[in-house]
Amino acid sequence: MQEFRAPVRDIRFLLHEVLGAEAHYRACGYPDATRDLVDAIIDGGAQFAGEVMSPLRRVGDEHGSHVVPGQGVVTPPGFREAYEKYREGGWASMSIDEAWGGQGLPHSLSIVFHEMCQTANLAFFAIVTLTHGAIRAIEAHAAPELQMRYLPKMTSGEWTGTMCLTEAHAGSDVGMVRTRAEPQADGTYHIHGTKIFITWSDQDITPNIVHLVLARLPGAPAGPKGISLFIVPKFIPDAQGNPGARNAVNVQSVEDKMGLRASPTCVLNFDGATGWLVGEPNNGLAAMFTMMNAARLDVGIEGLGCGQLAYQGALEYARERLQMRALSGAKAPDKPADPILVHPDVRRLLLTCKAFAEGNRALAYTMAFALDEELHHPDAAKRKEAGDLVALLTPIVKAFLTEHGLESAIAAQQVYGGHGYVREWGMEQIVRDARITLIYEGTNGIQALDLLRRKVIGSDGRLLHKLADRMRQDAAAARHDATVSQYAAQVERLAAEWEQLAGDLIRRARGDVEIVGAAAHDFLEYSGYVVVSWLWLRMAQVAARQLAAGGGDEAFLTGKLETARFWFARLLPRTRACVANLQAGSDSLMSITADQLDAMF
Amino acid sequence: MQEFRAPVRDIRFLLHEVLGAEAHYRACGYPDATRDLVDAIIDGGAQFAGEVMSPLRRVGDEHGSHVVPGQGVVTPPGFREAYEKYREGGWASMSIDEAWGGQGLPHSLSIVFHEMCQTANLAFFAIVTLTHGAIRAIEAHAAPELQMRYLPKMTSGEWTGTMCLTEAHAGSDVGMVRTRAEPQADGTYHIHGTKIFITWSDQDITPNIVHLVLARLPGAPAGPKGISLFIVPKFIPDAQGNPGARNAVNVQSVEDKMGLRASPTCVLNFDGATGWLVGEPNNGLAAMFTMMNAARLDVGIEGLGCGQLAYQGALEYARERLQMRALSGAKAPDKPADPILVHPDVRRLLLTCKAFAEGNRALAYTMAFALDEELHHPDAAKRKEAGDLVALLTPIVKAFLTEHGLESAIAAQQVYGGHGYVREWGMEQIVRDARITLIYEGTNGIQALDLLRRKVIGSDGRLLHKLADRMRQDAAAARHDATVSQYAAQVERLAAEWEQLAGDLIRRARGDVEIVGAAAHDFLEYSGYVVVSWLWLRMAQVAARQLAAGGGDEAFLTGKLETARFWFARLLPRTRACVANLQAGSDSLMSITADQLDAMF
Repeated sequence: MQEFRAPVRDIRFLLHEVLGAEAHYRACGYPDATRDLVDAIIDGGAQFAGEVMSPLRRVGDEHGSHVVPGQGVVTPPGFREAYEKYREGGWASMSIDEAWGGQGLPHSLSIVFHEMCQTANLAFFAIVTLTHGAIRAIEAHAAPELQMRYLPKMTSGEWTGTMCLTEAHAGSDVGMVRTRAEPQADGTYHIHGTKIFITWSDQDITPNIVHLVLARLPGAPAGPKGISLFIVPKFIPDAQGNPGARNAVNVQSVEDKMGLRASPTCVLNFDGATGWLVGEPNNGLAAMFTMMNAARLDVGIEGLGCGQLAYQGALEYARERLQMRALSGAKAPDKPADPILVHPDVRRLLLTCKAFAEGNRALAYTMAFALDEELHHPDAAKRKEAGDLVALLTPIVKAFLTEHGLESAIAAQQVYGGHGYVREWGMEQIVRDARITLIYEGTNGIQALDLLRRKVIGSDGRLLHKLADRMRQDAAAARHDATVSQYAAQVERLAAEWEQLAGDLIRRARGDVEIVGAAAHDFLEYSGYVVVSWLWLRMAQVAARQLAAGGGDEAFLTGKLETARFWFARLLPRTRACVANLQAGSDSLMSITADQLDAMF
Repeated sequence: MQEFRAPVRDIRFLLHEVLGAEAHYRACGYPDATRDLVDAIIDGGAQFAGEVMSPLRRVGDEHGSHVVPGQGVVTPPGFREAYEKYREGGWASMSIDEAWGGQGLPHSLSIVFHEMCQTANLAFFAIVTLTHGAIRAIEAHAAPELQMRYLPKMTSGEWTGTMCLTEAHAGSDVGMVRTRAEPQADGTYHIHGTKIFITWSDQDITPNIVHLVLARLPGAPAGPKGISLFIVPKFIPDAQGNPGARNAVNVQSVEDKMGLRASPTCVLNFDGATGWLVGEPNNGLAAMFTMMNAARLDVGIEGLGCGQLAYQGALEYARERLQMRALSGAKAPDKPADPILVHPDVRRLLLTCKAFAEGNRALAYTMAFALDEELHHPDAAKRKEAGDLVALLTPIVKAFLTEHGLESAIAAQQVYGGHGYVREWGMEQIVRDARITLIYEGTNGIQALDLLRRKVIGSDGRLLHKLADRMRQDAAAARHDATVSQYAAQVERLAAEWEQLAGDLIRRARGDVEIVGAAAHDFLEYSGYVVVSWLWLRMAQVAARQLAAGGGDEAFLTGKLETARFWFARLLPRTRACVANLQAGSDSLMSITADQLDAMF
């Protein structure tokens, strides 16, 4: 595979033509975020991702990050220098508040930049997205003096941040966290415990690392309501705010993982490390969700990025690789065989990747725009509405984008045949890297429960109805556009079916509590297809109008319409299996016993 | 994950209760293959796979096989000794003809043994299945003196065999092979060329290796009809039949692969190596298909094995791992949390693995029994009928078992959460290993074309109708069994729908040649679900009857019925998406141009 090429035309089309970025930013109080600025960020980001991040993708996988006794984690060659370029380019502070030295640009613009970097080098760029999550938690929950001490350094990228949640016995069940925080006379706490799976929690890139750690205060209630959040810096800032005394937090080991090998995933020991409480005692879960929700969008985009990168490779390969003739007759008679792009099944694989990448990107950006509105729209009602949309979309974005990012990576690898299985071509790394995105920041099973149980049943369907209404409005507006009218009709049907399936589950959950867990996965998948269909309709509508008006980018716009057709004809039918599963009871999952499951042996 | 446990109860149930092994073997002329002998092979095989193969799975992945200059390929520690145990145990010769020193047992019995070993150690055991493929090709096509020279040594396992087909520019398109064979005065040939992706084509385990090599004779027609097959031994047998002069075939390099790291995948240079023609000139493709068809069943079973092994691990983990309470209330109130097996979504993942493993095993064994009949049934009409079934099932077995083997491995890995991504738990290796099975021995896209184009359209639907008839007969026989009557009704519907979809495609292919490639993937998937549904009906029927009769293994039989329920309720609905795709035209794949596919960048 050649170096990373950012899908800049698709990103521009989405931001400007579909989502109306300039008007959106103006409405959210960012008059400076003009079309020109947006384009400059896209171009600069594409260049940075291509020239700085991408060349280290393979290097990072080959070398991995390792712990050197007495020295901590050593990262792959070139990572430190690349991080310096990231800081020097001013990318770190783009969307952080000016109060902390940031540039105060919209959150969604850094998402666009992040997407390109995550695509070019997933393992590396997690250090940035995690730091952003930590910044948001500190911004939202920490006392002003803690904010002053940490946020400027993190905004500039001088220090990085981590999320220390998981323990060996407490993964999805974060309420079982045992790490203790002992109050000290000076108002600090001593943290004791061991955390596992802590991403980028040690490195040789920045002079300090700010850990956000979930722990229990003495006498805290059992379960999730007894968890508090603490800042635990690797080096305790001195009076001047510079890294001072080494804190008692140490890397025990770095996991040997399937992929993401450049990203150090550490076991972290806290042996009486000094920490500072963030927010109220026993209220750590709220702060954690501030980080997690940001991180869930990030991880969704990581999944999207894997699919996008794999698509780029597979398309290049399919255009070059010559094998067999088209069944309909030679397409490249001057060559010994036709490029494999002529074969329908290769096209199926490629179009699957393209349709998910473009549709899922539209979903991610829609959520990012809603985040802008939730945080910055001057109208409180708009903020509330946007917040509802963010709440509903978060689990869908995390799970749907990662599920189909992995699917796309596997499909694109298949295009390469045997070469896809050999490391040198780079495709197998994408699959290995993509695999984690279905697991971390809450497994996709947890996302599915969050969607159905908390967001749908928890709001008695309100959040979902609001989005379904919006889908219906858009469908109505597109119904008389000949090119897309049949997609509009489908979106209208889907909106109604979505509401009906949700209503049905809300009712049935009253009588059969297992139905929620039994239906959650298929409900999330179904919801993903519905929401992305709505966005494909909107993209197709814009593309059709621009094509009709002439003067647009014909290859791009026609390709967009062809991909919309593929989506509705060949991917959307998968919802039929989801619907059947949603109508099935929970018995087909719940009746079988452990012994019966084991009885084949 | 603990050591490998063979699914012996399931294997016994299938062979004895569902497929009637004893009667089958008697009918095929194997009166010695009694129930006791079958059980002894199952038990001995389970022990061998668990004690000898399984302990080397992780070791093999960690060490890999490497080329040492001047020395050839060095395999992981323990492999040589394990191979010796395989030979000493008499496993090598089990199903080979007595003429070559074999034990003359049915082919399907070695398939059962192979399945357990492939599950326990896929990378290692490929050396055995490839050797068997080579034996069959030599048996079927080579001159008697070549058979005498090579088959006894290969039967005893003293020498191994390989298939040398692929070249850098000739993968799926084997007709583009360029390796040359120059006739010599003594009737031998000098082989010149480079082959890639040659599995187990060098090793330090046996004193000789027998390569079967596709090459072109001078003046041979272009394309697949100008290919001939040659035996090229690593060491040329001397007058006593022992390895003599070193032949001019050398390993250039070993691929660095995503998985299957213990299995050396070599680039092999033939620099005027001495070879012997197998069969007629320009008829190499027929001999190749003898190997390939055997290998396709083997690879299907490799996929099955990955899903099976992953299921074992995930079930163990789900029974032990404590996270959260069941939504319906605590199930293990004495523990800090419930085992995750209580959660419906974990059960969905496990049951997906179990339903595919058991259903796909039934399909593999059905094909293996048909192979016995094709080769050994005394009645020519039966042999023909069995051959037709084998022809139809081969691509389905290869593609469906591998596709859902990988799906199962990924699902089982998900049960482990973050631990599934860490190498030490072994789950990620299964996913990496499984991935190749969708690619080699003809990609799954090639299988799909083979099924629809050659087997269905090529026979004008005849092969498919015969199997659909058989399904209908079995469904009719089960219609009045209350427990399974609704499955019988479904199978009856599916048989009719399958015929209708095939008929439709046969008709449409006359007007739109692209429809074949455009429909092939979904047609294969659909066919897999249909055929496995038929087998789930038969398994459920037997289980229901045994349960009703009492005295059976209740946990096993009830588990079988519960898994049948899951299959019909929750996996079979996926066929609805296939049907929609089969009804779509080819335009949604074929219209988009290369430039339009590229226009997002």
